Amino acid sequence: MLAYINRASWEKSLETGEAHYWSRSRQEIWHKGGTSGNVQKIKEIYVDCDNDTVLLKVEQVGGAACHTGYETCFHKQVGPDRGITLVGERLFDPERVYGK
Amino acid sequence: MLAYINRASWEKSLETGEAHYWSRSRQEIWHKGGTSGNVQKIKEIYVDCDNDTVLLKVEQVGGAACHTGYETCFHKQVGPDRGITLVGERLFDPERVYGK
Repeated sequence: MLAYINRASWEKSLETGEAHYWSRSRQEIWHKGGTSGNVQKIKEIYVDCDNDTVLLKVEQVGGAACHTGYETCFHKQVGPDRGITLVGERLFDPERVYGK
Repeated sequence: MLAYINRASWEKSLETGEAHYWSRSRQEIWHKGGTSGNVQKIKEIYVDCDNDTVLLKVEQVGGAACHTGYETCFHKQVGPDRGITLVGERLFDPERVYGK
């Protein structure tokens, strides 16, 4: 998954050992998994060459990082004909986890 | 590595099979590896759940994706004490590839 992180959510992530991002729509710190219970336990942290991107390697509680219930947000593969194939399995039903 | 892609660079990537990004500083399509020869041959393409991020799985010619000569831009690991450790090896000398 890809998400925004700012200084406040970065600090929260380091303090707690669980991934916190920055919700641009809600303009608040987003504790990933706070609603679903599918938190991300941080195992390794990397910053990139020009220090503006962070890579978190995590243990994904529940197995699914994506709010759609898939393991990864990148579950739509683009074929040579530009067609989309869904890859991976859905690990939870979003309606059950988040309500309708 | 993480980079911007726009419609023009996305189309170029699909047409040529080599990764093209969008250079915000130069405001032009950036053919990754055009200078160094370290192009990225696209093997798999994924788009994310809300269709605003692309994941390219590539064969990295030359072995190094990072302009610093490292395999990955994420070669700085952050330790528990927030110290930085360089991980991986430098595969080329940027001064030789790009000039001073």
